[in-house]
Amino acid sequence: MWELRRDEALSRLEEHLKAGRVDQDIVDLLRLINSLSYAFTTSSCSGRIQLYEAKLPGSKFDMRTTGKWHRPISLEELRPLIKGENLWLAVLPPILHVSVKRGEELRFLQLLRDSGFKRAGIISISEDEAIIEASGTERLEAPLILEGVRVYRDEALPLLVERANQLLLKSKDRLRRLKEVLSVEVAGGLDNIGGKRAPER
Amino acid sequence: MWELRRDEALSRLEEHLKAGRVDQDIVDLLRLINSLSYAFTTSSCSGRIQLYEAKLPGSKFDMRTTGKWHRPISLEELRPLIKGENLWLAVLPPILHVSVKRGEELRFLQLLRDSGFKRAGIISISEDEAIIEASGTERLEAPLILEGVRVYRDEALPLLVERANQLLLKSKDRLRRLKEVLSVEVAGGLDNIGGKRAPER
Repeated sequence: MWELRRDEALSRLEEHLKAGRVDQDIVDLLRLINSLSYAFTTSSCSGRIQLYEAKLPGSKFDMRTTGKWHRPISLEELRPLIKGENLWLAVLPPILHVSVKRGEELRFLQLLRDSGFKRAGIISISEDEAIIEASGTERLEAPLILEGVRVYRDEALPLLVERANQLLLKSKDRLRRLKEVLSVEVAGGLDNIGGKRAPER
Repeated sequence: MWELRRDEALSRLEEHLKAGRVDQDIVDLLRLINSLSYAFTTSSCSGRIQLYEAKLPGSKFDMRTTGKWHRPISLEELRPLIKGENLWLAVLPPILHVSVKRGEELRFLQLLRDSGFKRAGIISISEDEAIIEASGTERLEAPLILEGVRVYRDEALPLLVERANQLLLKSKDRLRRLKEVLSVEVAGGLDNIGGKRAPER
């Protein structure tokens, strides 16, 4: 059953990849996770800069996204978008959801920890799978306009954009480290292709 | 073994309470969780407003906290603290760590979900316990000073403080809802004191 769901998920991912719907920054990592016989990815984001209209951050139901970038941005592309009544600039960390075959969930959780994803946990368990969510912790969530009043001083805006970009790149560096840790895991798996499990670390 | 650790943790909590080291906003909730025979709390925060010096948010090692409040703040108390080279204002959501006896972890996770703690997961599992971490998702993380440059316009500061306070109160409302859900669970537990388990919902 779980193996069937894994096959279906991997086919769906290939379709999404062909259609260009997957963030390029995270494709290698997804392929690496999906090469583990005991895991498959169900959703992910490599981290992003987001501009949204809302009274308060995190109000999913009355927020409207007006800009979204999975890469650093320039002041020139941000400036014309600074309009509206209540506008927020956010830098959101990478997030991963992975289905792990029962019995391997603690092993996979430890791999995530080893690579610096401190916020990783099992969010659901059924008979044959555990769903693990992992995300970075660094965020920026700053208002640009509140009740029609522009919040930032003009001379501070370049500094704000610079910090947003730095934070995004720092976040994405976590993905690189996870790839390194998983490469070791995958290599260990191949060494043990005869059926033996790689030793617990 | 787990029961012994629970007894010790509850005694420690009583000492912390006597010494006034526990945030008053969360005491009732901690007592409620600890009245469940299958759980005890290990650490918690009811959500807070925090002022800290750092180049980037989330840089634990080079950040210095210069203000911390578990309640709404006034512009008057914030203003004199706005100084330094790089200063951030954060609103951090409530966070709970709970040890749950093995076999009850999914039940407790569901209770957290029912009360709106969407970010809840099992962060470690051993033979006799699962550690569950639950936190709110709403955050504010906004720079007030970057490289010595004051970031906010004077007229926007009252609005920023207002939003920070609103977000903190919204966060704390999650604690109230969790108390309601847990009250039902505790009542169910008492009805079944003869040893039968409360029915799964």
